[in-house]
Amino acid sequence: VKVAVVGLGSMGLGIATSLVRAGINTIGYDVVRSSVERFIAMGGEGPPTLEQAVCEVDAVVLVVLNAEQVEAVLFASGGLEMTRADAIVIVCVTMAPDRARSIASRVVASGRQYIDAPISGGSLKAAEGQLTVLVSGPPDAISRANGVFGAMATKIYNVGDEPGVGSAFKLINQLLAGVHIAAACEAIVLAKRIGLDIAKVYEVIKNSAGNSWMFENRIAHVVANDYSPKSAVEIFTKDLGIVSDVSRDKKFATPMAASALQLFLMTASTGMGKDDDASVARLYALLSGTNLD
Amino acid sequence: VKVAVVGLGSMGLGIATSLVRAGINTIGYDVVRSSVERFIAMGGEGPPTLEQAVCEVDAVVLVVLNAEQVEAVLFASGGLEMTRADAIVIVCVTMAPDRARSIASRVVASGRQYIDAPISGGSLKAAEGQLTVLVSGPPDAISRANGVFGAMATKIYNVGDEPGVGSAFKLINQLLAGVHIAAACEAIVLAKRIGLDIAKVYEVIKNSAGNSWMFENRIAHVVANDYSPKSAVEIFTKDLGIVSDVSRDKKFATPMAASALQLFLMTASTGMGKDDDASVARLYALLSGTNLD
Repeated sequence: VKVAVVGLGSMGLGIATSLVRAGINTIGYDVVRSSVERFIAMGGEGPPTLEQAVCEVDAVVLVVLNAEQVEAVLFASGGLEMTRADAIVIVCVTMAPDRARSIASRVVASGRQYIDAPISGGSLKAAEGQLTVLVSGPPDAISRANGVFGAMATKIYNVGDEPGVGSAFKLINQLLAGVHIAAACEAIVLAKRIGLDIAKVYEVIKNSAGNSWMFENRIAHVVANDYSPKSAVEIFTKDLGIVSDVSRDKKFATPMAASALQLFLMTASTGMGKDDDASVARLYALLSGTNLD
Repeated sequence: VKVAVVGLGSMGLGIATSLVRAGINTIGYDVVRSSVERFIAMGGEGPPTLEQAVCEVDAVVLVVLNAEQVEAVLFASGGLEMTRADAIVIVCVTMAPDRARSIASRVVASGRQYIDAPISGGSLKAAEGQLTVLVSGPPDAISRANGVFGAMATKIYNVGDEPGVGSAFKLINQLLAGVHIAAACEAIVLAKRIGLDIAKVYEVIKNSAGNSWMFENRIAHVVANDYSPKSAVEIFTKDLGIVSDVSRDKKFATPMAASALQLFLMTASTGMGKDDDASVARLYALLSGTNLD
């Protein structure tokens, strides 16, 4: 099996190196050459052009930022036509389900197969090959791509036979994850404001009915006062933006997600967009004059 | 040890029967006589007056609805003065930390000891003696009351030496719990609205970064279409109301808790106040014309 990973940001680089580690012949590509060089330095193969990267592979794994970049790679830059006629296109990007279906239909029209495969877990888990992936697509394509998913993820959920279903599951997950981060930050700064020891609050809540996966994971960053990006604020302005677009399109009110989106936007607008998403706690601290140290 | 449990609603009755099961000499009291009779039918002792219930006990455990009822029992009805001069007053009611401190100071002024001991876990865990209790108060009083806490709870967190700290921890927990229920209901109904199988969404999210204790617990009710009250909507209109009062008093904005409170209020106002708090999902379904069956 030969695979190209297109998009070598923190997630894509982690996936590409996980594939190499699993013994898969992997080629990396990114429009930013320094990202490719990072992959080469880690033992990867990184030719200078998109065409050289994708022309001989069995599968192209796209780990770019958003749907626009997927379309740019596949259609505007001609990446799809550069691949073999039997190649599988695996898209790990979070996007609206309708958008995934639209891109899939263009890929399928070219005779190739499309797998919707949004990922979660953050860059550390990407580097360790321990992501969660929500896969939907034709069963025979998923079966052909099993080795790729097994190399990048420890949790592989096969959620449907049609593209768009994986994206829909990811959307629901991101709604919850974003709300939980915002709520965790609101709660921990309020705790500090009313005089509690936040390290103790963290320990107690972790073991109580108020816990969430995100509370447990992100409030550790707040307690440690470490906002170096494990997953950036801008991921959630993007993903909750998709939730907002989709729910508005369906005339479905999502007041919890909407409030969370505003908090991530405020956090980004005060200059913390590239920092860890637990920085929403620093927004609450700023707004309330609370010292979190 | 002899203990009186005052307030025999679903939580109080569960605590009282758990104490009996643990071999503690327990007397039950409630202003609603039928509640006392339920306790008697389960093997408990239930004299007709508050004075008879509390006059000889080592500890009075209050499991009434709110701070007003605590004050009514202890002060307006004279319950505090009816107890022995060395009795311990244990208050399991969720209330604002300042209110707990105020009630504690009046109890302490009478020469008796006060323990702030808000509980969580719902009526099923109360009946099984498996609550979580967030204890704060004088160490010697807590030590004297250890057997009582051990009979009612499996998780006992000693969070401080002063009354009010337990209530503050509970407040933070309830902020998170309320937001998580609202978010879980928003997410699962949106999932249905965009065509997903909600039982499958439940299984996938339970194992993903979007999970919360409340998502896992409450969305099982939605999937089963069972809104018989394990914990009622009105608990959260009350508890998020306390979050709202406290945060406003501290000039601390809590937009996530505020949105959740509005959703619980809407759910209660459409007639579901006594139903299970997962009924917020039925509110979303109603508002969006989504059929959850």
